[in-house]
Amino acid sequence: MQAHTDLSATIAALTLQEKASLLSGHGGWETAAIEHAAVASVLLTDGPHGVRRIRPEAREFSFEASLPATCFPTAAALGSSWDEELLFRVGEALGDESRAAGVGVLLGPGMNIKRSPLCGRNFEYLSEDPALTGRLAAALVRGIQSRGVGASLKHFAANNQETDRMRVSAEVDERTLREIYLAGFEYAVKNAQPWTVMAAYNRINGVHAAENPWLLTEVLRGEWGFDGLVVSDWGAVVDPLAAVSAGLDLQMPGSNDATTARLVHAVEQGELEEAVLDRAVGRVLRLAQRVAAGEDRPDADLEAHHMLARTAAVESAVLLKNEGAILPLAPGATMTLAVIGEFARTPRFQGAGSSKVNAARVDNALDALGAVAGDDVKMTFSPGFSLTGQEDEDAVLLSVAVSDARAADVAVLFLGLPEGEESEGFDRADIDLPQSQVRVLEAVAEVNPNVVVVLCNGGVLRTSTWDGHARAVLEVWLSGQAGGGAVADLLFGEANPGGRLAETIPVRIQDTPAYLDFPGSDSSVSYGERLYVGYRHYDARETEVGYPFGHGLSYTSFAYSGLRASVAGEGADTAVLVEVTVTNTGSRAGKEVVQVYVGDQEASVDRPVRELKAFAKVLLQPGESVPVRFTLHARDFSFYSPHLRQWVLESGDFDLSVGASSRDLRLTTVVSLAAPALSAPLTGDSTVGEWVGHPVGGPLFRKALSETRTSMASDPTILRMVESLPLNRLVLMTGGVLPTDLVDRLLGQVADGTSS
Amino acid sequence: MQAHTDLSATIAALTLQEKASLLSGHGGWETAAIEHAAVASVLLTDGPHGVRRIRPEAREFSFEASLPATCFPTAAALGSSWDEELLFRVGEALGDESRAAGVGVLLGPGMNIKRSPLCGRNFEYLSEDPALTGRLAAALVRGIQSRGVGASLKHFAANNQETDRMRVSAEVDERTLREIYLAGFEYAVKNAQPWTVMAAYNRINGVHAAENPWLLTEVLRGEWGFDGLVVSDWGAVVDPLAAVSAGLDLQMPGSNDATTARLVHAVEQGELEEAVLDRAVGRVLRLAQRVAAGEDRPDADLEAHHMLARTAAVESAVLLKNEGAILPLAPGATMTLAVIGEFARTPRFQGAGSSKVNAARVDNALDALGAVAGDDVKMTFSPGFSLTGQEDEDAVLLSVAVSDARAADVAVLFLGLPEGEESEGFDRADIDLPQSQVRVLEAVAEVNPNVVVVLCNGGVLRTSTWDGHARAVLEVWLSGQAGGGAVADLLFGEANPGGRLAETIPVRIQDTPAYLDFPGSDSSVSYGERLYVGYRHYDARETEVGYPFGHGLSYTSFAYSGLRASVAGEGADTAVLVEVTVTNTGSRAGKEVVQVYVGDQEASVDRPVRELKAFAKVLLQPGESVPVRFTLHARDFSFYSPHLRQWVLESGDFDLSVGASSRDLRLTTVVSLAAPALSAPLTGDSTVGEWVGHPVGGPLFRKALSETRTSMASDPTILRMVESLPLNRLVLMTGGVLPTDLVDRLLGQVADGTSS
Repeated sequence: MQAHTDLSATIAALTLQEKASLLSGHGGWETAAIEHAAVASVLLTDGPHGVRRIRPEAREFSFEASLPATCFPTAAALGSSWDEELLFRVGEALGDESRAAGVGVLLGPGMNIKRSPLCGRNFEYLSEDPALTGRLAAALVRGIQSRGVGASLKHFAANNQETDRMRVSAEVDERTLREIYLAGFEYAVKNAQPWTVMAAYNRINGVHAAENPWLLTEVLRGEWGFDGLVVSDWGAVVDPLAAVSAGLDLQMPGSNDATTARLVHAVEQGELEEAVLDRAVGRVLRLAQRVAAGEDRPDADLEAHHMLARTAAVESAVLLKNEGAILPLAPGATMTLAVIGEFARTPRFQGAGSSKVNAARVDNALDALGAVAGDDVKMTFSPGFSLTGQEDEDAVLLSVAVSDARAADVAVLFLGLPEGEESEGFDRADIDLPQSQVRVLEAVAEVNPNVVVVLCNGGVLRTSTWDGHARAVLEVWLSGQAGGGAVADLLFGEANPGGRLAETIPVRIQDTPAYLDFPGSDSSVSYGERLYVGYRHYDARETEVGYPFGHGLSYTSFAYSGLRASVAGEGADTAVLVEVTVTNTGSRAGKEVVQVYVGDQEASVDRPVRELKAFAKVLLQPGESVPVRFTLHARDFSFYSPHLRQWVLESGDFDLSVGASSRDLRLTTVVSLAAPALSAPLTGDSTVGEWVGHPVGGPLFRKALSETRTSMASDPTILRMVESLPLNRLVLMTGGVLPTDLVDRLLGQVADGTSS
Repeated sequence: MQAHTDLSATIAALTLQEKASLLSGHGGWETAAIEHAAVASVLLTDGPHGVRRIRPEAREFSFEASLPATCFPTAAALGSSWDEELLFRVGEALGDESRAAGVGVLLGPGMNIKRSPLCGRNFEYLSEDPALTGRLAAALVRGIQSRGVGASLKHFAANNQETDRMRVSAEVDERTLREIYLAGFEYAVKNAQPWTVMAAYNRINGVHAAENPWLLTEVLRGEWGFDGLVVSDWGAVVDPLAAVSAGLDLQMPGSNDATTARLVHAVEQGELEEAVLDRAVGRVLRLAQRVAAGEDRPDADLEAHHMLARTAAVESAVLLKNEGAILPLAPGATMTLAVIGEFARTPRFQGAGSSKVNAARVDNALDALGAVAGDDVKMTFSPGFSLTGQEDEDAVLLSVAVSDARAADVAVLFLGLPEGEESEGFDRADIDLPQSQVRVLEAVAEVNPNVVVVLCNGGVLRTSTWDGHARAVLEVWLSGQAGGGAVADLLFGEANPGGRLAETIPVRIQDTPAYLDFPGSDSSVSYGERLYVGYRHYDARETEVGYPFGHGLSYTSFAYSGLRASVAGEGADTAVLVEVTVTNTGSRAGKEVVQVYVGDQEASVDRPVRELKAFAKVLLQPGESVPVRFTLHARDFSFYSPHLRQWVLESGDFDLSVGASSRDLRLTTVVSLAAPALSAPLTGDSTVGEWVGHPVGGPLFRKALSETRTSMASDPTILRMVESLPLNRLVLMTGGVLPTDLVDRLLGQVADGTSS
């Protein structure tokens, strides 16, 4: 509000043409500057996990020509860290590098829900769960913005696939939108006040996100109180007038003045109120003010950022299995280690597309292992397979790998998804590890029982077909420029894997919730699985999974005890204090991710079996116990009712479970919550069942029925048969058996009974 | 058309009030009569599987007070017969009994798709598959109408649950409606010309079926050519004006003249054109004429109908398993038979609700077994469990049953669903056999290895939890008044089970397609599983089932050979002649249901793996071979495109499989079909991928690209990354790298190239 007042003089000093020119880019990455009014240009730059500052001299639309920057682990990795503090620190570093490069807005975090594992851009997203997504995104935003650089929540909203992404309409019901696809954005808007939100390419129920007044104005600003700027994804605007009218402020990239001309014309013709245009202009000016406040450019400490990237990779690595505690390898022991897999030498550490950073430096695991291993470890390396998948070549590589493995005490295989298999811009065809790599694993496992697999991939890979061949599987995702060092630390126990799955690993692609609805056709995709995304689906259908949401092992072990929950307040003021004690029962320090899930025992609508509502990552020394506390609020127990147009908390019992994964719930308690009953009042269109069940109307209806001579009065089976009939139609159909004035009479009695 | 001409004089002779009075019921079951114009009343009566003629003296809305009639097997059974000839004969019998009772329209067949096994009214429906449903319904209609009595296809449409059925909105996309929920109605309308269609209670995408102009006028009459009358389900009309305007002709039951007054007022006020009212009046008069033509009332042959009901029950019985050929029992052999289960004595043979017939006569299996068994069979009977499920009582009954079973050579258990568990008016909570019955089965199986289960139920029951205890399971459904005799014939080999599953038996309710979407909430239900209903779902997700769609054993065996398919014509004129030879390789006569499934190897939209497109039931003597021929047409290979607003046949290869069930495909061949490519023309909004793939536009686009200096021209990865970008937005985003007039220039060249 303040900003708008300050800026009104500036707005008044601008011509219509100048104002309109502020609402689309000046070229590819900047807003327009207007010298006479001291309006500065703002530079916006790609990159959730690193600053992709295009070289000023680059003239072509290119992903390569950017300045060097720290490449942090991708969102697929950071999401697995479950570590808000870490995300904040990565945000600070991103903010520092942005500022050093003159970047005013860093276009991230990416926070779309991983609806299908096939989405080619999942490596840029945090989780299949909105609570985890929202908290981590908020932390990253707070970190970036703490350095005077704006963040941009993207891609708002329901941009869950790459196929036909600029036209496809996500056909999705409002409850699902609210509870799954918008909830993370809502949390981040309310808790981190991002300077910008990016409107997505796709349509939602037929309307382009960038031209959607319900999304950009009613929900984002009206309900959530967003006071920043809405920028379009690059190329998302089709109709600039519709976009501005809907609440979009900045169309990117520039359109060689076409948009300016269109908006000027629209105002002149009365198609667009100038006040609406001014509102958007004010938001652009305010953003420019905020950016200008951080105009100095202190150098960023790339060395420190590299170390932070290494820590982040450690905290994001998920130890899926570890039979017989084969990991960590003893660093001091004499052993022969066969390192196998091209990825050990040629790391895959980030994804392809607009987020691709020109990494300032890249560690590879092979060198890092050598540095950490110590002199007693004899290491061999063989690539095992080629990334190009030439069969002839692969046969030779495989036989060398087998020979290495046979001679070694332990074989560490670096497997993963070749870069060509996943990218922004297209979706994946399957979730399988390439067959050439599985062959190497099988062959190695035949000659050496001590096989460790290190997985590098952005989109999830199923493991069920091959992980029986490995004693340990360490999923490191696309772990950024320092991922190689992190892997070395993890394998030799210099560090303890800190990650937990932010996404279920399914047994088969056929089991995934959107399998039959992805990616749609004819520019339309049905979100037929509704709320049941990720673990919500597997739990509701009781489907076996490869590894469940929240899963991740540690080199130590943890025990849970003393779960207590106390309820204060009711209805909207409900607060539930949850307390549990976690103990490190092993012999190493380690971090546990304590997860709190809530399930409604009985509801008037279908609800997921359990949903993540809180989590905390705690560091525990061997033998140490700490109490962990959470406070849950009414919203954490509520569902969204499109019928009542609000979040609804229903009285009753809720399961409250605490554990180490969605399927490793260690302790459960039940809390009873109270809330006012919310239901539409009885009408003639209310069913017999609704009448019978109504506290006031029920007895009145039964009494009226008993005064008739119908068998409904005496036979409960007949009453049950008609329970879904609206009362007015029952009266009509029974043609005089029930008094024709029954409905009016009952409604009058209900009104009396309610008011008395 | 003819009818309208003939009737115009009558219409002209009626007052507005009289005309309006014809459009709603005169009381519960009749249309109004208008003496001075010789307009006769038409009596409409419930009953897909028997005539439920309310006793004239009955004054109450009651399901009991009807005249005796033959109770044929329910639709759940008849659907399992896969026997069009049989359905025709049952239709003839129903027509005869209707006419004898003065009934002008028999309200059936029920032909909603079994979307979920939980639908309480599934016993009134034929199948989960629209092709099977359409053919059997058409046969029944032809049979009924061959006797001068009208049929009524119901419930039109998407009435797939009982919960909140009068208000619930089926939220379902058009392709799913067309391919699954409307296709059976379409077939029956086009192939059997029903006199009436009944508009359902529910809403479809927000609009009541009885007030839905798209459904009742555009599709039903406009596209399908229906020329009969649309009657509302009893109580389905909320707004009489909206109903008549939408194409509904007759509102039932009567409303004590409220509807008449409303319609008169609407015409007088200009809210309703009198011509629209007259059109509906004409359809009521035409129906009355048709009914009047069959006004004589020959007596029906109830004895013959009882025998037909017995035959129908035999043809509908599905032998699910038969280990070691325990069935048929040798009728001449000396044996002790323990008959166990209350259902043997108290048969459950039809469902509850409006379809419930006052059966003229009822056979129970116990008596029938005695009659068929012969003197060498010693039979004992014990109820095993009570239908009321009293635990004390059941313990005693169980111990007697076990003792009987121990002393017997074979134990035959009659198990099933108690009547209170399923009915019109409410949905089921699970698909489990009551635990009290499973306990009896388990206890009996412990003392006798030769257990045969006879199942009586309308909605499907899962078998996986208990059928390991039985050597044979014979599913007889709700098999009508002669079902007991049919069971006796089947068990002793006097008859051979003729049924095949018209509905998949799932392993778990959690596996069923609509599990997370049934029955919805807040008067709305999402058809999120879309096309993937029944076996389409299990096959697409490769889910294990209990028994697959189309499954059913015989006392003999069949071999398939010599599958050939030849294609004639192309596009809309495509005809595929399929020929296969089936041989009875066993030692008894028996009927095989030969099933033809079609699968599209590659399509522009997602399609089911395979779909039933034709079937034939053939009787074969031992050793006999017959050739079976089918002709498939373009529609059998097409999908419905809401995008192109038509059925689309795409060129390419189709799998054509012939077999004994959807998962027992004995022979498969491939046919290549040709059809003109149907796609929207290229526009600026067409994606780069669509341009590249277009036969004319592709080369032009590549040539234009090669003339620019962008890396897209040389690097296929970059081109792939932008393939989903609409071309106009790519041009915009690359800001001058691609010529700004590129789209216009290319579109001009495409137009030239296409026209030259």
